[in-house]
Amino acid sequence: MEIFRTAAEMQGFAEARRLRGQKISLVPTMGYFHEGHLNLMRVAKKAGDCVVVSIYVNPTQFGPTEDFEAYPRDFERDCRLAEQVGVDVIFNPDNREMYPDGYQTYVEVLETTKNLCGLSRPQHFRGVTTVCAKLFNIVKPHTAIFGKKDFQQYTTIRRMVSDLNMDLEIVGMEITREADGLAMSSRNVYLSTEERKSALSLNLSLTLAQKMYLDGERKSAPIIEKVREMLSASPFTRIDYINLCDARTIKDVDEIEGETLLALAVWVGKTRLIDNMVFNENS
Amino acid sequence: MEIFRTAAEMQGFAEARRLRGQKISLVPTMGYFHEGHLNLMRVAKKAGDCVVVSIYVNPTQFGPTEDFEAYPRDFERDCRLAEQVGVDVIFNPDNREMYPDGYQTYVEVLETTKNLCGLSRPQHFRGVTTVCAKLFNIVKPHTAIFGKKDFQQYTTIRRMVSDLNMDLEIVGMEITREADGLAMSSRNVYLSTEERKSALSLNLSLTLAQKMYLDGERKSAPIIEKVREMLSASPFTRIDYINLCDARTIKDVDEIEGETLLALAVWVGKTRLIDNMVFNENS
Repeated sequence: MEIFRTAAEMQGFAEARRLRGQKISLVPTMGYFHEGHLNLMRVAKKAGDCVVVSIYVNPTQFGPTEDFEAYPRDFERDCRLAEQVGVDVIFNPDNREMYPDGYQTYVEVLETTKNLCGLSRPQHFRGVTTVCAKLFNIVKPHTAIFGKKDFQQYTTIRRMVSDLNMDLEIVGMEITREADGLAMSSRNVYLSTEERKSALSLNLSLTLAQKMYLDGERKSAPIIEKVREMLSASPFTRIDYINLCDARTIKDVDEIEGETLLALAVWVGKTRLIDNMVFNENS
Repeated sequence: MEIFRTAAEMQGFAEARRLRGQKISLVPTMGYFHEGHLNLMRVAKKAGDCVVVSIYVNPTQFGPTEDFEAYPRDFERDCRLAEQVGVDVIFNPDNREMYPDGYQTYVEVLETTKNLCGLSRPQHFRGVTTVCAKLFNIVKPHTAIFGKKDFQQYTTIRRMVSDLNMDLEIVGMEITREADGLAMSSRNVYLSTEERKSALSLNLSLTLAQKMYLDGERKSAPIIEKVREMLSASPFTRIDYINLCDARTIKDVDEIEGETLLALAVWVGKTRLIDNMVFNENS
């Protein structure tokens, strides 16, 4: 497994592989791998001849009061795990390499980023789309794999790729969960034992919503109300948002129709967790 | 010479050429070619194996009161001229192809776009950088050629390419002038005979500034003052700006130092013209 720290090295490697006719697949990550990341890498392995995993905790997607400094990091362990899955290249730049002095260019997707996490994290998606645009230009992938836990991110990246005519395919992977249903997240390490228990309410409330849906409920208001009740009843929780919205536009809907996203963001103690479920009327 | 109207066709062609090891060079234009455009194409011909010229009057770089509708167009003539120079491909998309329903992604370079044309044309550069990012992804060039008449555009595109790690080289071409010194521009056709005469004051005032520079003047204020006097003395003129600024950052300077841009924008009747000169203390 090769490790590149500079954009020039990574780009030279990628261009040489493309000229040999190889397909490159990319998994962009912030490191501190869990099984969800490894599942993305396994899909990348099937999608391409050469799997690149980027490990970069991107400062431009964190707000000033957020956990950029505290975000968990373990580069050695990440490399071991990636190598076991058969990853070919780790791209691990530093901030000077990604945002040198005088840096001033940003990519913005205006509409899909307004709702949900865009409301509580105002510059977050600008940071995400900018760093992904950079990574796509550096790694030159044919395919990039994103987890659907960050569903709004997945939708926004797809929109950027389509709008800017980036010549790659974005693949979305279902959420990987712990045995008890908690969505895997690098931030789960922040949780105390009691908070960890309380955090199960996110997935449980989604399951409750699914039951209502299967029983025929299509209105947003009663579903959101029940989810709110369940989340509020759990200790240490503070709800950031509960929304039902169009999965493509990320605009709120009054009723489930077509592909509809139920998205949650909940503080459990000092940790902000997200989870979601997609209802698909067409499938 | 091939003509493509869709991004998919153009992108497929470009990728196939790249896989064959060919070098692609791009000249992005809004059409209505003059000798300046043809000079860019001649440079592109030397830079690559396959020359692509895009012809697209990009609506997102025009303000609501600007000349988007009136901008001169002559596609048949443009194709004849391009073919004579040896261009391989014309890429000529329509607005639906470039900005389909739901389009919402923009690339912004924050600092180099603030001064000069950025002041009088607030959304202009966002439109330019966005369409260039799209064209680079569609045409996949190794080299793109830009005229230095739009010096701020040239600087801004270079900044975007560097910041977003786009893997191509930007080449800037010196201004092509009419025999009497007027910088070539598709907008020169708007000028009446009397305005055409008056428009010579742009180049004449730059020549005056150059003389002051060669005589040892380095302060911005006296140079700008003399240029202003000469432009104001010419009939039908209204000055938009006269600035001396750092050629890399496009920030105003009090003194010529390093690479310094003297940039003018002047209304002559209803036509807004730009021209510039670069003083290079290092060369």
